[in-house]
This record gives sequence, structure tokens and C-alpha cells, in this order.
Amino acid sequence: MAGGVGSRFWPFSRTKCPKQFLDFFGTGRTLLQMTFDRFKSLVPTENVLVVTNMMYKDLVMEQLPCLSASQILLEPTRRNTAPCIAYAINRIKSVNPNANIVVAPSDHLILDETTFVETIRTGLDFVEKNDSLLTLGMTPTRPETGYGYIQMSDGDTNLRKVKAFTEKPNLEMAKLFLESGEFLWNSGIFLWNVRAIDAAFRKYLPEMAAKFDMGKNVFNTDKEVAFIEEMFPSCQNISIDYGIMEKASNVYVLCADFGWSDLGNWCSLYELSEKDQNGNVALKCNTAFYDSKDNVIALSDGKLAVISDLNGYIVAEAGNALLICKRDNEQAIRQYVNDAQVRFDGKYN
Amino acid sequence: MAGGVGSRFWPFSRTKCPKQFLDFFGTGRTLLQMTFDRFKSLVPTENVLVVTNMMYKDLVMEQLPCLSASQILLEPTRRNTAPCIAYAINRIKSVNPNANIVVAPSDHLILDETTFVETIRTGLDFVEKNDSLLTLGMTPTRPETGYGYIQMSDGDTNLRKVKAFTEKPNLEMAKLFLESGEFLWNSGIFLWNVRAIDAAFRKYLPEMAAKFDMGKNVFNTDKEVAFIEEMFPSCQNISIDYGIMEKASNVYVLCADFGWSDLGNWCSLYELSEKDQNGNVALKCNTAFYDSKDNVIALSDGKLAVISDLNGYIVAEAGNALLICKRDNEQAIRQYVNDAQVRFDGKYN
Repeated sequence: MAGGVGSRFWPFSRTKCPKQFLDFFGTGRTLLQMTFDRFKSLVPTENVLVVTNMMYKDLVMEQLPCLSASQILLEPTRRNTAPCIAYAINRIKSVNPNANIVVAPSDHLILDETTFVETIRTGLDFVEKNDSLLTLGMTPTRPETGYGYIQMSDGDTNLRKVKAFTEKPNLEMAKLFLESGEFLWNSGIFLWNVRAIDAAFRKYLPEMAAKFDMGKNVFNTDKEVAFIEEMFPSCQNISIDYGIMEKASNVYVLCADFGWSDLGNWCSLYELSEKDQNGNVALKCNTAFYDSKDNVIALSDGKLAVISDLNGYIVAEAGNALLICKRDNEQAIRQYVNDAQVRFDGKYN
Repeated sequence: MAGGVGSRFWPFSRTKCPKQFLDFFGTGRTLLQMTFDRFKSLVPTENVLVVTNMMYKDLVMEQLPCLSASQILLEPTRRNTAPCIAYAINRIKSVNPNANIVVAPSDHLILDETTFVETIRTGLDFVEKNDSLLTLGMTPTRPETGYGYIQMSDGDTNLRKVKAFTEKPNLEMAKLFLESGEFLWNSGIFLWNVRAIDAAFRKYLPEMAAKFDMGKNVFNTDKEVAFIEEMFPSCQNISIDYGIMEKASNVYVLCADFGWSDLGNWCSLYELSEKDQNGNVALKCNTAFYDSKDNVIALSDGKLAVISDLNGYIVAEAGNALLICKRDNEQAIRQYVNDAQVRFDGKYN
């Protein structure tokens, strides 16, 4: 899944080139490329599908030149994850109705790739043998309020039935979750076979399933694109979590711990980044701090930031824009971007 | 005079392209070009000399293509204003020992050019007839602590003998200066004829005058450059104010009021710029302020700055560097630039 617009990381992430297409850490590989690389030993290249928005087609082809055009599924409009996943599973079903599938966002960070690969193998083994929906749950390391949580059933294995999904908790609740040992972070990485997810769509999102059924003879043919362009915009705008996972009864979670972050916002990036002795984080830039602490500074490659008397701020500069705001006010960034869009006619999106 | 390095405006102003070569206000003309334009109706183009550092030769030629190479006098090293002016007057003397001269910095702002031209005409009339040293004094409009002041003798004309030059005062003193009506801002713009300034150099800086005398036959010949390269670095590093103006007895001041600023630092720029209702100044960029006041924001042309919860800061970004510091701490900028030079090997100078 590579269709997000990543507005929370503006101005680093732009509508025309959102987060998944950026070399976020200056490693030479974008988040999308790192996600692709991570699956190299698990999935043959020809079995990889990237679902993205039409406007990112060229970016995906440029960043993953090993993919053929038919492996890039183009959403004509943004409709959240359920229609995105429905599109991909219908394409896969037309090729192999017994396929086992991993669904993964393309804009997450995973530090321990070896453990990741082992976890995915374990998950694929399970969904090959069970018509269940499997999600990866991350063992929490802090009372994070920015993630949804998964409550596991009792048990002594690391693969358990899900008791409940929860919304993002407040700090007090998050601390209880952490202490209980019953709760995992919801990673948004899913595994299932075609039969199980197909049945789930029919049961929990029957209208959407019916829309995709109308095209059952066009997937993987030259009529697919026209069909999707026509039908997709009419799909309900809903996430797979809310539409299916939270409602289905055959949902399991595999506990894992591979240094995961959804890179959802500057604060999560701040948390996982190396800090200097004053708690300052510098991303892709040189910095000289004077009487300043607890800032996260992200500039275009190799720039110098001289920062004096600043505490607890996000300073992000890229392309034609600069953002300076408090770290604890970062939920307002989306509003700033919207304001700028209206006021400057999209020039800085 | 166009040889300054303008480090107080870093990162806007860089060693390789200091302030006088920048289109500071986004008008399409650099400060040097605006200075040249200002003299168009007063001085024939062929009588204009630009004294600058060797490393800025190409910049001057590029920005003032109407000048021939011989009109650009190149300092092989920085030696403050006295040697710079000595070079120019010796060149002028070799062409016309009776010339009347205006010496002007190339990095000041002048808003009312009509009054400026009238003032210069009045001054030139005076120095044509009097072997005196004339300086332009600006009627102060606020108790500015960033300027030196000139105390006038009693009188009822706007051209008076100078009683004393003073250093930059503290605020209390500056308020007294302003109230007294006796004090003017020292603009650093001088007028004199060749005889008067030549005599002053001989009297107050005899060693420097002797050095230039050694080359009296080479000015305006193809031997001038080699002579200057050899001799100039041995000159005393001293300003014309300290070396001559403060010591000479035949110094006059012409009071003027043409909307002048030396653009000496961000605060002076802040003072004279248009502010929004929250006291924010934006230079050459678009801005969106949230809960922010009294900032001065200067970015590369046309960029957007989104600024939240920031009060009383300088935010300046240009080329490969960004500076964020408090307005009342701007005297530290020079130190920041020096630190960066050492730490990053001049990459951000």
C-alpha cells in the first residue's frame, strides 16, 4: 500500500511526493524501496503488487524499476484501505485463488529485518493452513498514545486469538495497556489467504464485495483499468480495520518485536531517532545548537541549521517551504497545510 | 565601497556573495545596483569607481556590466575603509587632481532618492569651494543604539561644523542624543575634493599616505594592479572614521533626511520593514503565522514559512543554511558563523 499523502510530515512530505517516496533517513533508499527490499527473500518479485494513487504511478515505476506496469495497481481516488485491499485481492484471486497474501504499508520503519522475515514466514505458514485473518502485533516498549492497540486472548504462544481492537488510548490508559502485557501495537500489517479475506469482504462489506464482483472477468485483462476507474470512486471510504478486522471473529494476532514504527508523525520519528546530549534530533542535516534542547530538525540534504534558544520544536524545511512549530502541537500541521492550500492555491502542497 | 563580507546577515549574506550583492528586498536590483542607480543623475558612469575585494570582481562586473574592468579597484585583502579610500583617491588624483568625490557604502538602504540627490548636490557644491571634509548626518528618528552619532556645532543651517563623533551609545544616552537635537546618525557617506582628503591622509595617516605615494606614477597604468597587490596588505587596518574623521579639525556635517538605514543587522532591517498586526516581518517569502509575534522571517525567494508559537526570533534561510535565533541575541550571529567555519571547514560560509 503506497497511496498515502503523508501530510503530517509536511513540508518534508508533499502531495506530489509523499513520505513513502522519500529517503527519510538519508540511507539512499526510500521507504517504499526499503519495504520492497524487506520482502525480497519472501516473495518473488513478479508476485509483488503496489497499490497506489494514479498520481504516483511514475514515482513507483521510477523507484521500483523491476516491477512491470501491471504490478502497479492505480487507485483513481483515495478511498482508505478497504477498497485498496479489495482491489489487490481481486487481482490476486484472478491469478491464483489459493494465494497467501501479506498486506503491508510502504511507509513504515522496521529495524530488525531478520526477525521481520522470520515473523512473516511464521504468519504465512499459519494462513496457508487456516482460513483466518492474521495481523501483526508489536510488543509495546512505551505507553505510546499515537497507536491503536490489540488486546490478545489468554495463552502462552505468540500467536493468539484477538480479543479486541482499541482506539488510540490516552496516556493513563496506555500505561495500563503496557503494564498488563495483554496489549500489542496494531501494526497495520496483515496476512491471510484469498478465501479468508474474500469471505470476510462478503460478510462485512457486502456492498463493496458486490462492486468488485461485477468486474470478476476483467481483472488481469486490459479492461481492468477502465473498470476500476469507473467503479472505484463509488466504493465506501473505509479502513480495513474498521470495516473488517474489528468486526470479524476469526482474527488472530502474531506478537512480534522487530523495531517497528509507523513513522506516523514527527514525535514518533523523534522518539526513535538518535539524540544528542540535549535531546536534539537532526535528520539529514548538520546542526549547531546553542542553548537549545529537545528539538527535531529536518532539512534538505546536507544543509546546516544554526539553532539558538529554541526548545521542544519541530523545524522542517524542504523544497519551497519551512515549518517551525512546537513538538507538542504537531497535530495542527494538517490544519496548517490545509490553510496554505487554500491561501496559496496549492503552491506549497 | 563594496568589499564587506556582511557576516551579520548570514545565512542570507555569504562570504562568496555578501549583502551588497543581494537583492535584499526582492525588488529585482541588488543593493550595489541600487547604490549605482542612485548616482546616475549625479555622476557620469565613467567616473564611478567600485572598490571591492578581489574575490568579488566577477560579481561586480556581472551586476554592473556598464563599468569597464579598470573602474573596479580590487583590494587583495581586507583592510577596513581608510586604505580602501586611499586607493580610490590616489587613482582619481592621477586622472584629475581637482576632482570632487563622494564616498558611499554600497550596502545601505535609501528610501527617498530625490532628497538624496539634492543633498549630494549641495554637498558637492560645498566641497568644490571648500577644502573641508564633509560627512552626511542623518536626522535621527529614534534612540538607535546601533549607530555612531555626530554632534553638530550650534547654528541655524543644515551644514555645520562637527563638534564630535561618538561611539554607539547605550539606550539612555541615545535618548538624550535624540532629545537634544544636536546629534545626527553617522551615515558613512563622505564628500571632499582631492586636495582636502589628500592633505588629511598626509596629516593623520602619514605612513599610509607614503605607501601610496610610492606608486604615484603607476595609478591608472597597467602597473597599478601589481603595485596594489604588493603594497596594500602592508597598510594599517583602520577605518576612515577612526583614522581621519575623528581627528581632523576641518570636518563638516550636512544634515539630511532621506530614509536611510545602514542595514547593519537584522534588527535595523526589522525596524524599517512593514510589519503585520502582530509585529511580524516577512522578507521575500510568504508566511503563515500562528500564535507568533515580533519575528523577522527571511527565506529564499517565494518560499513559504509556516511559523507557530514563536516570538521575537530571526528565521533566515538561504542556500545551504538556516538560522533560528532570538532577535535580541543577534550579536552572536558572527560567532555562529565563525564556529560553523571551523567545524564544517567553510562549507557554509
